[in-house]
Amino acid sequence: MNNFEYQNPTKILFGKDQIENIKNEIPKDAKILVLYGGGSIKKNGIYQQVTSALKAYDFVEFGGIPANPEYAILMEALQVIKEQNITYLLAVGGGSVIDGTKFLSSAALYEGDTPWDILTQNIRTTKGMPFGTVLTLPATGSEMNSGAVITREETQEKLAMGGPGLFPKFSVLDPTVIHSIPQRQLANGITDAFNHVLEQYMTYPIGALLQDRIAESILQTLIEVAPKILKDPTDYKAAANFMWSCTMALNGLIQKGVPTDWAVHAIGHELTALFGIDHARTLAVIAPSHYTYNFESKKEKLAQYAERVWQVTEGTLEEKAQAGIEKTEAFFKSLEIDTKLSDYTQDYQGTAQKIAQRFTERGWKGLGEHQSLTPNDVEKIVEMAY
Amino acid sequence: MNNFEYQNPTKILFGKDQIENIKNEIPKDAKILVLYGGGSIKKNGIYQQVTSALKAYDFVEFGGIPANPEYAILMEALQVIKEQNITYLLAVGGGSVIDGTKFLSSAALYEGDTPWDILTQNIRTTKGMPFGTVLTLPATGSEMNSGAVITREETQEKLAMGGPGLFPKFSVLDPTVIHSIPQRQLANGITDAFNHVLEQYMTYPIGALLQDRIAESILQTLIEVAPKILKDPTDYKAAANFMWSCTMALNGLIQKGVPTDWAVHAIGHELTALFGIDHARTLAVIAPSHYTYNFESKKEKLAQYAERVWQVTEGTLEEKAQAGIEKTEAFFKSLEIDTKLSDYTQDYQGTAQKIAQRFTERGWKGLGEHQSLTPNDVEKIVEMAY
Repeated sequence: MNNFEYQNPTKILFGKDQIENIKNEIPKDAKILVLYGGGSIKKNGIYQQVTSALKAYDFVEFGGIPANPEYAILMEALQVIKEQNITYLLAVGGGSVIDGTKFLSSAALYEGDTPWDILTQNIRTTKGMPFGTVLTLPATGSEMNSGAVITREETQEKLAMGGPGLFPKFSVLDPTVIHSIPQRQLANGITDAFNHVLEQYMTYPIGALLQDRIAESILQTLIEVAPKILKDPTDYKAAANFMWSCTMALNGLIQKGVPTDWAVHAIGHELTALFGIDHARTLAVIAPSHYTYNFESKKEKLAQYAERVWQVTEGTLEEKAQAGIEKTEAFFKSLEIDTKLSDYTQDYQGTAQKIAQRFTERGWKGLGEHQSLTPNDVEKIVEMAY
Repeated sequence: MNNFEYQNPTKILFGKDQIENIKNEIPKDAKILVLYGGGSIKKNGIYQQVTSALKAYDFVEFGGIPANPEYAILMEALQVIKEQNITYLLAVGGGSVIDGTKFLSSAALYEGDTPWDILTQNIRTTKGMPFGTVLTLPATGSEMNSGAVITREETQEKLAMGGPGLFPKFSVLDPTVIHSIPQRQLANGITDAFNHVLEQYMTYPIGALLQDRIAESILQTLIEVAPKILKDPTDYKAAANFMWSCTMALNGLIQKGVPTDWAVHAIGHELTALFGIDHARTLAVIAPSHYTYNFESKKEKLAQYAERVWQVTEGTLEEKAQAGIEKTEAFFKSLEIDTKLSDYTQDYQGTAQKIAQRFTERGWKGLGEHQSLTPNDVEKIVEMAY
């Protein structure tokens, strides 16, 4: 096991009817900016619950944060923060709204030339404007971590940021929000969380027995509840397990003391930037090819995963490892998530070279748990995913 | 799954050579009281590492905190805190030293008549004097939770306290400390952590799939590493997994959203108070009898545990559940932990009645996950453990 540091101060309020308790978490004298996305919260009752809980507060709203939170729109929200002397942010939404709010938390206190530098110069945020979240779409884990990914359409870029100042003060996880989420988004959420675990697990054995087992526990739970949620989003038991699994998949715990990969995300982000493919779906496209291309270095963990998560008991280590990849792809397909780039666009020719070129231009140091994958490797992985 | 709130702000510094990093965690102007136990830290090098890390600080020491931290001795330490204008506490030890330090953290800022009230009147600590810990004996989980148990010899009492102000600011978990721990203490630590998980797991199914699996993960890991640690405490991989499992067993995570029992601890504490039996060993004495006595209400979880943790695949649900109890007792015995009260004292006659009487006098509301166990039930459980 590697040495590690772990700290996660976010307070979780989990369960039905927890939204009203946000009034116990936000300072009474706060001037709040409530941030949300396309307005679905006004149809499913969440907006009403939030504004009811905030009725004793001074707050203003900023809606319209899109999936893949767009820098230009966030800069408009930053303007509101400055003009209205906002002191507290409340994200009501999924990962995009929460990530956008993290950017604003950092940008609101940033003293440099332009907040874009936070993203391009990898400036870690040690202190941000305080914020809480009301999660409306389980998937990204952003509600209990300190990272964010921001998109800038102008330059077709999708860049990461983070730092200990960007943990939410609190996050409300009410599983009843799942009732009104479209099937497509539910399938994306399951796929996203599943891949988050894989990025922190599918590397090489390092003797972190408990971290491995907790990662496998999350994967097993997602597999168990996935068909139930897709069949009936009002199944509270399944929804609660789905929601908590998504949070636990990326709250930092399972990555401590172990090598992590994240190549699937790095490559997947490019597919979203180039084609606008849903984030989770880009992961389902890249992961099987990535594991196949890097089979030799990942086969021990692939076989352990096949045995423990999918109960594959027959065959050699290599055969089990191969079965692990096949089971993963079949699982994504069972969620009606396609796993080839050509399922999403007819315009895929040349994508591999284009992405490799972008990695080269950015001076990337090498992807994967060994930081050894070159732009040439990336090109081959993307080609395998056509 | 039940609704829950979860927050754990303790920062973990895990791995070898982490002790030196405490200097990055304690404010430079702190006046520190370093607390420890019987002085073993002066023989195994930990004292030297700690004082070396603190060389730029103003600090004083207080040694001699015994196993089952004694109120009268802690009151002497409180005197030192007041006289020396201490602003920060550093516990260097196992659960007893850390629990004692939590009491001092609370007592140092307590404004009532006598700090004993904190224990007898269940006063929750919302703000304590800040403290960190350097863990020297994995077992209790106290290094990453906000609870403590304090003993008062004068009244033969052992009482609990806690509150959100009692999380350590940081805890150092260096697995190399295990090298110098006597076998008896290692066996106690494994048994203690194992029982902590059981208290939060061996109740009834409530559909908390992930919490169940994480609890099972900790149990499986403890079972896997126990013989390795007892054979060779310098096995770093085994030691690291043991240490992290003990912390994860009682840092609050696996108890969230599920019913918890804690009857084994409540009864076990009485055996320590009456006979001075090591805490962990009292749990090994009470747990099998408790699960046998409450077989009907616990059999579903006992069977799930037997299946998943001990790979018991044959038999009816009741047979599997029974096998779960037997496997548990056999596991404790494999650690050379005796599981009957008569293994520890010849003076056991009348103990059951005496403990039942103490529960009656204290006006206890009922033990166990249903708060339904009466003093009469406790009497029968203890009798079964003779």
